[in-house]
Amino acid sequence: MSLYAGIEAGGTKFVCAVASDFDTILKEERFPTTTPEETLPRALDFFRRAEEELKDQHGAITSMGIAAFGPVNVDSSSSRYGWITSTPKPGWKNTDIRGYFVREMNVPVGFDTDVNGAALGEGHAGAGRGLDTFMYITIGTGVGGGIIVNNKPVHGLVHPEVGHMILKPREGETFQGVCPYHSHCVEGMCAGPAIKARWGTPGDQLPDDHEAWDVEASYIAQALMSYVLIISPERIILGGGVMHQRQLFPKIRKELKTLLNGYVDHPAILEEREDYIVPPGLEDHAGITGAFILAAGAAHR
Amino acid sequence: MSLYAGIEAGGTKFVCAVASDFDTILKEERFPTTTPEETLPRALDFFRRAEEELKDQHGAITSMGIAAFGPVNVDSSSSRYGWITSTPKPGWKNTDIRGYFVREMNVPVGFDTDVNGAALGEGHAGAGRGLDTFMYITIGTGVGGGIIVNNKPVHGLVHPEVGHMILKPREGETFQGVCPYHSHCVEGMCAGPAIKARWGTPGDQLPDDHEAWDVEASYIAQALMSYVLIISPERIILGGGVMHQRQLFPKIRKELKTLLNGYVDHPAILEEREDYIVPPGLEDHAGITGAFILAAGAAHR
Ligand SMILES: Nc1ncnc2c1ncn2[C@@H]1O[C@H](COP(=O)(O)OP(=O)(O)O)[C@@H](O)[C@H]1O
Ligand SMILES: Nc1ncnc2c1ncn2[C@@H]1O[C@H](COP(=O)(O)OP(=O)(O)O)[C@@H](O)[C@H]1O
Ligand SMILES: [Zn+2]
Ligand SMILES: [Zn+2]
Repeated sequence: MSLYAGIEAGGTKFVCAVASDFDTILKEERFPTTTPEETLPRALDFFRRAEEELKDQHGAITSMGIAAFGPVNVDSSSSRYGWITSTPKPGWKNTDIRGYFVREMNVPVGFDTDVNGAALGEGHAGAGRGLDTFMYITIGTGVGGGIIVNNKPVHGLVHPEVGHMILKPREGETFQGVCPYHSHCVEGMCAGPAIKARWGTPGDQLPDDHEAWDVEASYIAQALMSYVLIISPERIILGGGVMHQRQLFPKIRKELKTLLNGYVDHPAILEEREDYIVPPGLEDHAGITGAFILAAGAAHR
Repeated sequence: MSLYAGIEAGGTKFVCAVASDFDTILKEERFPTTTPEETLPRALDFFRRAEEELKDQHGAITSMGIAAFGPVNVDSSSSRYGWITSTPKPGWKNTDIRGYFVREMNVPVGFDTDVNGAALGEGHAGAGRGLDTFMYITIGTGVGGGIIVNNKPVHGLVHPEVGHMILKPREGETFQGVCPYHSHCVEGMCAGPAIKARWGTPGDQLPDDHEAWDVEASYIAQALMSYVLIISPERIILGGGVMHQRQLFPKIRKELKTLLNGYVDHPAILEEREDYIVPPGLEDHAGITGAFILAAGAAHR
């Protein structure tokens, strides 16, 4: 009998939940991400109440998983493992979020990026099921990606930050993007705030046939071309607010095929297959599901 | 007692060798890659002679590994596993290179791309030693890369083809590159033939302080920026003919730091560390060493 505690720690909101297995949430709470001083104790209080309520039937919380906004430190050999590091979000720079719950909950705590959490969740029960190597990308307020290679999240030196790769501007492009670090990076050109800055209107208020979506699809396809050439994923899952514009999917598949120009000789690309570039299977439960998977991994270490 | 047979099957030359362990080559032969009908039997003949000569002391060949030029099929569940597939090299399209040796040698045969082979070799005894996640990139006649993530080569859908990612042209750029598939891709802009096409002189005849090397370094750095953001490697090994120009290394490190602009907050990048972007440790024995590692992997399956 095990009770997993999971946190999807987003820059906007925290999702806290406890589950008896990866698919069975027993109790869940969502609240805005304010300061660490306020938000972390609020999460802790939720877990204490949940455990109290559930322990007769399910036992105590045995481990915990956190999928956090970042940049974060995911190097388990580092003294800063489990910290939110150089984030621009006020108050959160150098926050030892994992350490807080290790101390307060006294259980093993698994930790990864929010997007790796979502990728793990999609791999378990969503659009990544049964695949060894795939990507989950979110195009929302920012652009980020979780990458699973040979069934494990990619970490490496720091962790991937796929949203800041530089794009080749389209013929006649005058917009440089909105990223304070880079001109023409994926996030700066494609995320929600970029759409608003370029067209003066947020994406959800633009008509489905607005030219914005052709521009958007061509840049997303260029980013995907690099991901395909570097990672060679078996599938790419595209989530986040901007991807609610479902008309983007066929445009992106078509443009990706044009850009690769036959170089990647595989039906997934040559036939613009609908099962290659897909929306998430779990929508807004991918991250929390991933957090439970991280909890289980921590328990077995 | 085991005797490994290894082939580094390059588009220009074949390197065949037998070894008693990954570091101890007992016999080696190199010859040009002509047609499959000529080249494969020549390799086979070498292994038969070598085995004959060595078997009293070392026993028979127990397994074999092939690191091949491509594109290749590295999906061990495919009916075309171990084939060289859509290569432009005359005569080699759809060649079942692995199958030939499985039939003729009757031993387990491991198979991977030439660049994954080199990466495995560098990981064992070269510049990738002790690292979980790193890349080996060759900038020679073409640009290719082998990627090790969590100690295993990346395959995924097909295999990485990191040389064909699109670059953002420099201010005022007039050259589109020499790739027949893409304008402004890494290989088309940076490989040896691109240098020759742009400057009218092959790279090895240009002076060390020619502006060609600034242009070259800026495009290589842009490619590395994407690799860093997507894979987050602990180290990047740069080999191949063009990288004999050692003055490129400090230029690339500097340019990479400028391009990332503080976004990847790690000393390897912020301090332009010399142990982050490095030349190969094994030079021209990386590939064959990787082939022995593939042989050992095949034996244990
Ligand atoms: N239906 C929509 N069409 C286009 N853009 C949208 C849509 N819904 C949300 N967005 C944009 O996506 C961004 C929010 O992304 P979301 O994934 O919901 O949140 P976050 O990235 O903060 O977790 C905003 O910039 C918003 O303008
Ligand atoms: N010292 C050098 N400086 C610059 N370019 C070089 C040098 N040596 C070889 N090259 C270029 O590298 C390419 C050959 O690359 P190499 O790695 O030796 O072989 P391959 O890629 O065919 O295995 C050629 O285009 C050649 O012009
Ligand atoms: Zn950026
Ligand atoms: Zn190309």
